[in-house]
Amino acid sequence: MPPLPPLRSAEVIAVGSEMLGSTRVDTNSLYAAERLSDLGIELRAKAVVGDDRGDLASIFHASLRRADLVILTGGLGPTDDDLTREVVAEALGLTMHQDETIVRALEQRFARRGLQMPASNLRQAQVPAGARVLANPRGTAPGLFIEHDGKLIALLPGPPREMRPLLDELCDGPIGARAGTERIYRASLFVAGRGESHVEEVVQPIYSRWRDQPDPIVTTILAAPGQIELHLSTRDANPEAGRRRIEAARDALASALGEDLFSTDGRSMEQVVGAMLADRGYWIAAAESCTGGLFTSRLTDVPGSSAYVYGALVAYDNRVKARDLQVPQELLDRHGAVSEPVALAMLEGVFRATRVQVAVAITGIAGPGGGSAEKPVGTVVIAVGVPSAPPDVRTHRFMGDRSMIKFWSSQAAMDRVRRMLQ
Amino acid sequence: MPPLPPLRSAEVIAVGSEMLGSTRVDTNSLYAAERLSDLGIELRAKAVVGDDRGDLASIFHASLRRADLVILTGGLGPTDDDLTREVVAEALGLTMHQDETIVRALEQRFARRGLQMPASNLRQAQVPAGARVLANPRGTAPGLFIEHDGKLIALLPGPPREMRPLLDELCDGPIGARAGTERIYRASLFVAGRGESHVEEVVQPIYSRWRDQPDPIVTTILAAPGQIELHLSTRDANPEAGRRRIEAARDALASALGEDLFSTDGRSMEQVVGAMLADRGYWIAAAESCTGGLFTSRLTDVPGSSAYVYGALVAYDNRVKARDLQVPQELLDRHGAVSEPVALAMLEGVFRATRVQVAVAITGIAGPGGGSAEKPVGTVVIAVGVPSAPPDVRTHRFMGDRSMIKFWSSQAAMDRVRRMLQ
Repeated sequence: MPPLPPLRSAEVIAVGSEMLGSTRVDTNSLYAAERLSDLGIELRAKAVVGDDRGDLASIFHASLRRADLVILTGGLGPTDDDLTREVVAEALGLTMHQDETIVRALEQRFARRGLQMPASNLRQAQVPAGARVLANPRGTAPGLFIEHDGKLIALLPGPPREMRPLLDELCDGPIGARAGTERIYRASLFVAGRGESHVEEVVQPIYSRWRDQPDPIVTTILAAPGQIELHLSTRDANPEAGRRRIEAARDALASALGEDLFSTDGRSMEQVVGAMLADRGYWIAAAESCTGGLFTSRLTDVPGSSAYVYGALVAYDNRVKARDLQVPQELLDRHGAVSEPVALAMLEGVFRATRVQVAVAITGIAGPGGGSAEKPVGTVVIAVGVPSAPPDVRTHRFMGDRSMIKFWSSQAAMDRVRRMLQ
Repeated sequence: MPPLPPLRSAEVIAVGSEMLGSTRVDTNSLYAAERLSDLGIELRAKAVVGDDRGDLASIFHASLRRADLVILTGGLGPTDDDLTREVVAEALGLTMHQDETIVRALEQRFARRGLQMPASNLRQAQVPAGARVLANPRGTAPGLFIEHDGKLIALLPGPPREMRPLLDELCDGPIGARAGTERIYRASLFVAGRGESHVEEVVQPIYSRWRDQPDPIVTTILAAPGQIELHLSTRDANPEAGRRRIEAARDALASALGEDLFSTDGRSMEQVVGAMLADRGYWIAAAESCTGGLFTSRLTDVPGSSAYVYGALVAYDNRVKARDLQVPQELLDRHGAVSEPVALAMLEGVFRATRVQVAVAITGIAGPGGGSAEKPVGTVVIAVGVPSAPPDVRTHRFMGDRSMIKFWSSQAAMDRVRRMLQ
């Protein structure tokens, strides 16, 4: 039998009526676009369809006609309206059987929590003939992978944290094996403390030269919460050449961006700051007011952060600022809780109460109420202290709603720690 | 001629290869979902397709077969790869002509900026026979609206700020006129502390009866982080009857779910708990270990939370537990930091240090390291104290990665506060 032609095109179908409302966005297809693009496979179309047998069957049929690879996400749960397994099996003319390995894995999963498996979960053990079962350690719905008439079909669970590792497994395995020789090479650069147009001005003269060269490099600028991201990509059949080209491009942008650049390896701000603290053997503690604990919560999102996060005082009420941080009542009365003298006094309070090397104090107005002409909503004062430098205090004005202002505040505080430790 | 039947179903197709990358999300369809739902028109599916004639034709054909209304966004620009007009005209068998009103509007638009209109922009003046032209004051691409064999087709520009006013115009005009008198009535119920299959077992006998009644109620079950959501909808020409039916359905599920139900009005757990605290005039404070401040950060996401959130101590390091919460070292040594005696001692520490009415202590192993056979990753102990009840302490075992375990812990702690205050 001749080898099958390489996969060129893919489509993604997200299944679930809840995905058709006005609030939910399908992020699985974004992840799939990137992983497939790495393998030189083009995502040509994507769809979202409700829990309707006829609609799903019609859309799946059409996708399968057009594309070499069809990925369906969602609709693998235990309930009546989870139809993906059945509709795909019927469309491909495959019979279903109960997979005893899945049954046992489900029973064990429930048993570990001291629960009896409900009978409805047996639906999740139904497998179309010839399908490969993909164990899903993060959820009850296993994935399924089917090769049919030279085409590939993947059925993956809907929650992104369950879907992603299963797609990775397929891309490293049978999907990757059927991809062509060209691969996409990527780099990303994350910038903090600058707006999108400033970053664009700095990098545009550099990346515009790359567009028309024989092996072009595609540059995308994206304003993400708290950071500007530059995404570079280029394709090559030669891994050495592809990697060299993308690294040279990344380095050229990095030197233009200087210390505004905080990450060239996809690491988040909390990961970068955490690594700096760990490297130096420093402990960090915070006094948080308007962020309500978000700064420290983000720091502790990083595995291993217990080696450098001492703790925090969420001084939401002014009584906490006065009592536990010993901020003089006179400062609170004279300057208000959102002021540079109070932020500095909070910082001193952290150093007084702990023996950490790095301290952060954040006080501000997250809104929607509490603003004034002089101190509008979004006014946030951040004080940072590190060894062998005077304390730094700055007043920021952030835009957006309450949760955006909290996020920007935590990001700016981490970025200040990063710059002061650098 | 008999009146045309009312529109019941719609699909949205976003056109443009740039919408298929890993960073771009189609928000036009979210806006359309909401506007159409207001009119009782169900968005049954949506798609994103690149600038490819064959793919677009195939997807448009299929959508038109399934739906009464098809909205296409994007692909109306002046360049060769803007194909929406041509593909739709061809699919419907309509000839195209140049619309002189559009030509003049385009020329004027360019003239206002002191520019000559490029010849390529004449493509944007091509109109299928019988189409209504929708002036687009915010861009060069006019919208088009076609009635064909009883179905409606709208071609709208891609940029959301151009697309939205044109869709509004259609919903207030010809789409609204065909929407019929039926509207969609919705309710949602949020459940905490129970798994999806448990909730399904409780509610399935109830909602399954509604599916086949003359005025069916559609029920969707969704496992969201930290909660199970039930979404109900029904359609009715009589607002009174529609509202009454959906409220009766909601109440029937609510009484079956009992105190596991925490929200019937879309409010989040932090909003519900916050309102209970505010109602009772209670202050809350927390001692957080594994959640790192997330519990209190979530409470403070709610506007007005400064009226009941006193503050928190993030006791990440055991030194903080011993020093600031006065957890006896002997308890830490004998039972370990993740234990019911330590959680209770942390809770006492909060009550000792503050004068709040409600206190929460959370200590656990968020992973990926730090687990043991006896206390695996995901073991989290939560202690809660409220007025006039003995302190409650429970050991949980959560699944998932570090950030999921943190989130579940914060959710379970809030849910316990809710149940104890109820």
